[in-house]
Amino acid sequence: MRPSGRTAHQIRPVTITRNFTRHAEGSVLVEFGDTKVLCTASVDRTVPRFLKGKGQGWVTAEYGMLPRSTHSRMDREASRGKQGGRTLEIQRLISRSLRACVDLKLLGEHTIVIDCDVIQADGGTRTASITGACVALADAISWMRARNLIQANPMKGLVAAISVGIFDGQVVADLDYPEDSKAETDMNVVMTEAGKFIEVQGTAEGEPFALEEMTEMLELARHAIRELMDLQKAALA
Amino acid sequence: MRPSGRTAHQIRPVTITRNFTRHAEGSVLVEFGDTKVLCTASVDRTVPRFLKGKGQGWVTAEYGMLPRSTHSRMDREASRGKQGGRTLEIQRLISRSLRACVDLKLLGEHTIVIDCDVIQADGGTRTASITGACVALADAISWMRARNLIQANPMKGLVAAISVGIFDGQVVADLDYPEDSKAETDMNVVMTEAGKFIEVQGTAEGEPFALEEMTEMLELARHAIRELMDLQKAALA
Amino acid sequence: MRPSGRTAHQIRPVTITRNFTRHAEGSVLVEFGDTKVLCTASVDRTVPRFLKGKGQGWVTAEYGMLPRSTHSRMDREASRGKQGGRTLEIQRLISRSLRACVDLKLLGEHTIVIDCDVIQADGGTRTASITGACVALADAISWMRARNLIQANPMKGLVAAISVGIFDGQVVADLDYPEDSKAETDMNVVMTEAGKFIEVQGTAEGEPFALEEMTEMLELARHAIRELMDLQKAALA
Amino acid sequence: MRPSGRTAHQIRPVTITRNFTRHAEGSVLVEFGDTKVLCTASVDRTVPRFLKGKGQGWVTAEYGMLPRSTHSRMDREASRGKQGGRTLEIQRLISRSLRACVDLKLLGEHTIVIDCDVIQADGGTRTASITGACVALADAISWMRARNLIQANPMKGLVAAISVGIFDGQVVADLDYPEDSKAETDMNVVMTEAGKFIEVQGTAEGEPFALEEMTEMLELARHAIRELMDLQKAALA
Amino acid sequence: MRPSGRTAHQIRPVTITRNFTRHAEGSVLVEFGDTKVLCTASVDRTVPRFLKGKGQGWVTAEYGMLPRSTHSRMDREASRGKQGGRTLEIQRLISRSLRACVDLKLLGEHTIVIDCDVIQADGGTRTASITGACVALADAISWMRARNLIQANPMKGLVAAISVGIFDGQVVADLDYPEDSKAETDMNVVMTEAGKFIEVQGTAEGEPFALEEMTEMLELARHAIRELMDLQKAALA
Amino acid sequence: MRPSGRTAHQIRPVTITRNFTRHAEGSVLVEFGDTKVLCTASVDRTVPRFLKGKGQGWVTAEYGMLPRSTHSRMDREASRGKQGGRTLEIQRLISRSLRACVDLKLLGEHTIVIDCDVIQADGGTRTASITGACVALADAISWMRARNLIQANPMKGLVAAISVGIFDGQVVADLDYPEDSKAETDMNVVMTEAGKFIEVQGTAEGEPFALEEMTEMLELARHAIRELMDLQKAALA
Repeated sequence: MRPSGRTAHQIRPVTITRNFTRHAEGSVLVEFGDTKVLCTASVDRTVPRFLKGKGQGWVTAEYGMLPRSTHSRMDREASRGKQGGRTLEIQRLISRSLRACVDLKLLGEHTIVIDCDVIQADGGTRTASITGACVALADAISWMRARNLIQANPMKGLVAAISVGIFDGQVVADLDYPEDSKAETDMNVVMTEAGKFIEVQGTAEGEPFALEEMTEMLELARHAIRELMDLQKAALA
Repeated sequence: MRPSGRTAHQIRPVTITRNFTRHAEGSVLVEFGDTKVLCTASVDRTVPRFLKGKGQGWVTAEYGMLPRSTHSRMDREASRGKQGGRTLEIQRLISRSLRACVDLKLLGEHTIVIDCDVIQADGGTRTASITGACVALADAISWMRARNLIQANPMKGLVAAISVGIFDGQVVADLDYPEDSKAETDMNVVMTEAGKFIEVQGTAEGEPFALEEMTEMLELARHAIRELMDLQKAALA
Repeated sequence: MRPSGRTAHQIRPVTITRNFTRHAEGSVLVEFGDTKVLCTASVDRTVPRFLKGKGQGWVTAEYGMLPRSTHSRMDREASRGKQGGRTLEIQRLISRSLRACVDLKLLGEHTIVIDCDVIQADGGTRTASITGACVALADAISWMRARNLIQANPMKGLVAAISVGIFDGQVVADLDYPEDSKAETDMNVVMTEAGKFIEVQGTAEGEPFALEEMTEMLELARHAIRELMDLQKAALA
Repeated sequence: MRPSGRTAHQIRPVTITRNFTRHAEGSVLVEFGDTKVLCTASVDRTVPRFLKGKGQGWVTAEYGMLPRSTHSRMDREASRGKQGGRTLEIQRLISRSLRACVDLKLLGEHTIVIDCDVIQADGGTRTASITGACVALADAISWMRARNLIQANPMKGLVAAISVGIFDGQVVADLDYPEDSKAETDMNVVMTEAGKFIEVQGTAEGEPFALEEMTEMLELARHAIRELMDLQKAALA
Repeated sequence: MRPSGRTAHQIRPVTITRNFTRHAEGSVLVEFGDTKVLCTASVDRTVPRFLKGKGQGWVTAEYGMLPRSTHSRMDREASRGKQGGRTLEIQRLISRSLRACVDLKLLGEHTIVIDCDVIQADGGTRTASITGACVALADAISWMRARNLIQANPMKGLVAAISVGIFDGQVVADLDYPEDSKAETDMNVVMTEAGKFIEVQGTAEGEPFALEEMTEMLELARHAIRELMDLQKAALA
Repeated sequence: MRPSGRTAHQIRPVTITRNFTRHAEGSVLVEFGDTKVLCTASVDRTVPRFLKGKGQGWVTAEYGMLPRSTHSRMDREASRGKQGGRTLEIQRLISRSLRACVDLKLLGEHTIVIDCDVIQADGGTRTASITGACVALADAISWMRARNLIQANPMKGLVAAISVGIFDGQVVADLDYPEDSKAETDMNVVMTEAGKFIEVQGTAEGEPFALEEMTEMLELARHAIRELMDLQKAALA
């Protein structure tokens, strides 16, 4: 039995709210149960220096948690003067995942920056971030096309992400914080619409895991991500 | 005529939503029109080193803006590695304002940290922060009293804040961004329930201002703050 | 009775020594009693990046305290690796005050940087800094005109600043450290030659203050600043 | 055909040299072909603050690259003033991998710090680091036991790591730099002696990958890691 | 002929003004011609952590230049966020020089911090700093003895410092900035009252120098330092 | 008797291994007994900003110690976020020493960066660094000439460095760590092939030293450096 009463395969209620704030070219509040992340996409008409004059664009992400998004207050990274290793690791993961669904040549010399800021955390903030950021990215691209900044659609398809893991000996999907903090294994999976993998990051927090468990987790992730993509499509419709 | 169509004395619609997030001991979303700030209060059972063993508590605030809370994206302070001068100045102002309404002796050896994070900015983020933070502080103190962490109520009364200024030659209340960016004078005023001043910070952005204008602005601020305090009381009721 | 024996309206002996050091285009030692600040003005033939090509100049200030300018030694900010919030707040105040007395268009594409370094502190370092910096700025501008770097005089008039406050129930001018550390209210006021306000920053350290007290403090400030401007003019004569 | 002429399953020549430097409690130079990493283990008789008094130890790792370990010189992180995201990500991975093979209770209140410094890079520095660090850790633990700092052996078994990937459409093991920089998919796998997974991190650099490809890569990794463990055992014999 | 018209052996006019500022336990303005350095000594009743409980004291120095102490304005180190290599090198030199003249055991568990802040620079700031700091240190020690913080005098004697060098083929003493910026060799020498060396730091900026030149420079330094010590003694009398 | 059994004039066994790593244009492992430093030279086809367009090149060095190159582990500077004063001082010394043997005009608009990374420390790391770096520099220059990046040889001759000191009352050469940590005086000497001095840095750690002792140390250094240069020439042959 999971602490939340969910079945092993059941993900939390997911909502995707577009246009959550006013200024950004894409602005999405994504909720996976009690995990709430604001994803904004900002269009910049320049590219980073290493891409100057190469005729292609760039997509990158930043991630942060509000100090009291968590059970006990975390120090504010701006005040400590640096971003922690976990933060950098997550924003690198989100960045790679989003770049995987964009044709950077078709984007032209523009940069899209996605900010994922966790308003409230209850496990799975990085997978919620990727899932919401993809929708914000799609909105920003529509905004660009409406202004003729780009002609063709650079988006190759959707990406979404889910965490799976082994909790109390059982393979489960979409771990919330009470599960996550006790799980034997925690795996984050990012997939394309075609059901292929972009990122797989599995960590044995307690017991090492076997290949069969891994395969079972990946199958479960594939199923859950298909659900998430239906929700993304509905939101974008 | 103000850009928003408001009369000179009219403040924007203000809403105060308590319990906006789950984890904090006080969590308030405050909205002054399109300006939206999340204020959370966190209770810590220690005090800063300079107060160790002095039998009193501490109240302090931190302030941040989400990178795309503004018209064009601002660099993330955590990523730049330091908080800017404006940020530090604002969090010092919020901190002093909140300490002015708490009897630190009655608070005992506890620290309350108020985080004010701007979700969406449209002028007046510091005054909205103070007004919302006061309610989050009141909730955190109720939480402490319910758990018998403190006996007496350390709160001496409410504080609230409003910006006033001279826009297009006219004294106006609660400037939004289009006004703020063109105002000749901008003044932030923090007051107590008794109608006395805690902070007054006036800056001539364009033309210097005369004593009569200052007095007129302060009267207007007093009026607006009384309205805000009615809203605070209604929210806390 | 004030600790120094001064009357409520009496400011400390003020001296303004020009050409205190050799290298700067303007170099002024300003003394408000035991508070001594060295203000140097440096002319730079470029402008910050955000002003490139806009045909206007810039004026900005930096502020620092020598580690043992104070009663007990403060950590050196260069060694701690960052400037504190108080420092940044003060240098923003000085910068705004000085820009208020310069027509940036007439300055052409030049930057004047004013460094205010506190040699000895006894209260009122920010108001002494502004008062001395204005004279250093005037000297730097004369230096520029003598070299035909600019044609017209960009200086719109003098600025000076004084602190006023409520000490022991009485409104007093130019608080020294023993007063400042116990004052109920502390207010810094920056004015133009025409007797108008550029900045007013009042803080209730103890008791909140009433509008009548504020008005009384501002009147007193106006009087004191007129005295300071006579001294500035005498120094520049 | 792989650029190095190796078969798809063939790993590079691996050498493990113990006691490479004099001062550390464990010091191992590990070479995977042209990739050379110095792994030192340092025993510290304290624990980090969050573990004080809990009767258990800690194992952590740090990672760095010499500036000219790579084809073109990288900036020195000490001189830039911060460690990059890649560095932090790798040292978090090494740390978790090593903690997975140690019973922290049996380690007592000691910390073992493993430093992995890349002398020369040719792909696979993180997997070489884990493989070499495990041997340095074993040496440090022997050193502790020889001095009766701990009674029982806290080491639960060996860990080793290999990269696998899809290069030119083919699943290959132990990618060197020419392969790594062009691979469609790159996956780092960390395993126990029992053939179970501690970490799996797969990234589609180019084309997303299918579940069957993933399974094939994991099987190949399992095979390669078994080879590495034979070399670790031979080195420790 | 030297630019200043001085003979090769002639040092600049040197003045040592004690009690230059009010708060420090020792406060000396030292002038070597146009080079002016404020040296303050602060007594702290603790010792750094590495000396806790060892029954001895510590002497350390910090060094800084006001931004416009130099011909063209230097960036403020506090604002750049770190002290440069030259600054750190100089404060390490001053610290070692001062420690060489104090018996740290007799100082008891106290720390004396010497701050050397350059008000105006014209070459030789580090040697002026050491020469002035020694007098400030002596004053701080007298202050401690007058308050019975220490019984015996921990000062073993005076130290002073001079720069010597090869300018235009000639060995000269006490180089000013026009000489220093063109000298072939620049050497800083720190000596005791007994005429022995504490520090010798010679650098060939242009041509390498021969042993005979070195010996000649050291003889000249010895002579000049004797003059400086007479001035120190006169100031302390 | 020296702890190592060496005679007073005897330096440790010195080896210079060229091409120690693959990627750098010059790569030398230098060993002075148990002190081992990897020196790599990297050719960059640009110059620092202050030299742009001046038709000359630049040579600079960086220095670091691996965390466990020392008896007890030192904090990693990249992780602490800044390089310490000792590190900066040493890399400034190495930089100046190397620039002294290169005609920067003949180098053209290229920068050569020398990285000196201490693999194992046993005293004398800065003198070993200079001695090895000179060989790496020569190799990088040969590499440039072979590619016709420069026509004439910009190298004016070799430089090498040795430490000398007073240990147990006796003047000794090439102090190892047990001597260095107890020496009364420690002096680092950098010389040219012609037997002239580039840098002399002598510090009395314990007793101040006399001119005769200094002369004796310099003679000893001259002798030892001649030996080092024979080894450099043999390595380069």
